Amino acid sequence: MRKMIDVQTACELLKSWDDILILTHQRPDGDTLGSAFALMWALEALGKRVRVECPDPIPQRYDFIVGEYTPEDFSPRFVVTVDIASSDLLGSLQPVWADKLDLCIDHHLRNDMQPRHLLLDSGVPAAAQLVYQVIKGLPVQLDKKIATAIFFGIATDTGCFRYSGVTAQTHRVAAELIEAGADHVLVNRLMFSTESRARIELDKMVLNALEYHFGGLCAFVAIPMQAIDSLQIEESELDGVSATPIRIQGVEVGIVLREGSGEYRVSVRTRGKVDASVFCAKFGGGGHKEAGGCTIQGDEPTVRTALFAAVSEALQQAGLSWA
Amino acid sequence: MRKMIDVQTACELLKSWDDILILTHQRPDGDTLGSAFALMWALEALGKRVRVECPDPIPQRYDFIVGEYTPEDFSPRFVVTVDIASSDLLGSLQPVWADKLDLCIDHHLRNDMQPRHLLLDSGVPAAAQLVYQVIKGLPVQLDKKIATAIFFGIATDTGCFRYSGVTAQTHRVAAELIEAGADHVLVNRLMFSTESRARIELDKMVLNALEYHFGGLCAFVAIPMQAIDSLQIEESELDGVSATPIRIQGVEVGIVLREGSGEYRVSVRTRGKVDASVFCAKFGGGGHKEAGGCTIQGDEPTVRTALFAAVSEALQQAGLSWA
Repeated sequence: MRKMIDVQTACELLKSWDDILILTHQRPDGDTLGSAFALMWALEALGKRVRVECPDPIPQRYDFIVGEYTPEDFSPRFVVTVDIASSDLLGSLQPVWADKLDLCIDHHLRNDMQPRHLLLDSGVPAAAQLVYQVIKGLPVQLDKKIATAIFFGIATDTGCFRYSGVTAQTHRVAAELIEAGADHVLVNRLMFSTESRARIELDKMVLNALEYHFGGLCAFVAIPMQAIDSLQIEESELDGVSATPIRIQGVEVGIVLREGSGEYRVSVRTRGKVDASVFCAKFGGGGHKEAGGCTIQGDEPTVRTALFAAVSEALQQAGLSWA
Repeated sequence: MRKMIDVQTACELLKSWDDILILTHQRPDGDTLGSAFALMWALEALGKRVRVECPDPIPQRYDFIVGEYTPEDFSPRFVVTVDIASSDLLGSLQPVWADKLDLCIDHHLRNDMQPRHLLLDSGVPAAAQLVYQVIKGLPVQLDKKIATAIFFGIATDTGCFRYSGVTAQTHRVAAELIEAGADHVLVNRLMFSTESRARIELDKMVLNALEYHFGGLCAFVAIPMQAIDSLQIEESELDGVSATPIRIQGVEVGIVLREGSGEYRVSVRTRGKVDASVFCAKFGGGGHKEAGGCTIQGDEPTVRTALFAAVSEALQQAGLSWA
């Protein structure tokens, strides 16, 4: 039975623990990594033995935060997860640790993890903002490295303070992090002002493949497998294109279809009138109101037909009409 | 002879004045508009007669801030400019007002205006952040409309808190604005998460025309006139593409060439190793270290040859070599 706890209790627990393993979710993003490494460095500053484990390799573009990380070898006595809402996001580490979690720190609306203690605040737009509160509650001086990692988590999970979950408090934390030495200029330059040539090629491919349907209410992109392969692009960079179609004025449903081996990975984004999680559930997937995903078997024409039928239905249910 | 003043003095002056004309710069952006309208609304709340004038039509995409604005008809006794560093940026209003300015509020490093009073702070990344300080010094309650306009100015001039000029104070001001009711979600959605279909077409055109030169140190795009005409795109949206080439990893000089009537408008961006203002000065233009512009007469092959010769020289001077 998991127990909901507050920040102060989480701090008391962490202060009393040692030999701590911190887990990130699979296909790690900036928030889970920034949260994990910031927390590790803070606990290490308290003299504790701590290690971060990630179910997947950490993308190269995050090297500037993680650096040359050599995990300490010890047998964990306490296990903490950050930014993980569901056990299956532990990926390859699920069988080992899912039943042995001591503390989960998370910010998702729904969290079905079963740790001994759960620190959950769905009011913050990034887990790193919650980790910041935890670290503030520890007898640790926030240094440049820790501050930068937290800033990195917050900035990447909010599209650099752009998303609707950002609050006054998020900006206030950003101010405090910058004052503590966070290299916000570096984070912003590498995460938001630099694209690899492969990513630029991918953007070009996406724009050239962009189709409008249902009078412009739906924008649709299908990316064939050989196209993705030819780019040799990192998975984490591929994810970014899911947001392209929904950015277009007038679009209520944006769909990006990526061919995998014998199946199609479908990423759905909406502006909230259509519920992306309901839409994706029809195909065995899920998500949030404005972002969801699913996987569909079959060839492209079949998948298209099924998707467009579902889009048509969803738009009508949302009361949206087209010529 | 212009007199440098501080925020408090600017507040005293504004409190003592009435019948105030506030001028924005030509080809208005979010910062000049947000600053001007926020200041007008604040002064109106003090019972003053105020009007904003803009040398050019205000782009439609800023309607959500400016709304249905009908300027009050009166003969100005005091004239204020916001976010204007140079008289010629007054455009069509220069002959009328350039010699009659009472107060300029600006944040540019160099300012060659000749008003009676100059409030200049180059330490803030947006004029709107300085205007915020001024309004805080007036006996006015910050309301939703004013707070949103200031947030709009700051967010648009910092690429949503992304650019290097952002400080802890910028984030702290953002927090206070959100607490005062600023509709940051609306500003961010319309300014940073929505693109017109024309802009998407333009992005596609730019990516398809993208060329790499000098071993990838220079990325170059030439947009023909008929292409721009065919898009029927607003000038303010066209400007955005200047930043595309320099975002690419490894690029030190990004050039966007736009055909006009018998000439080419050249926009140059760098990462600071090459000085964009020095580069553009060779062609009679100017700018800052990382962004500059110039206009070159001639047909495309001539213009290209001249530009690439200059790029080659500039890269070598910067100590950058290529295979």
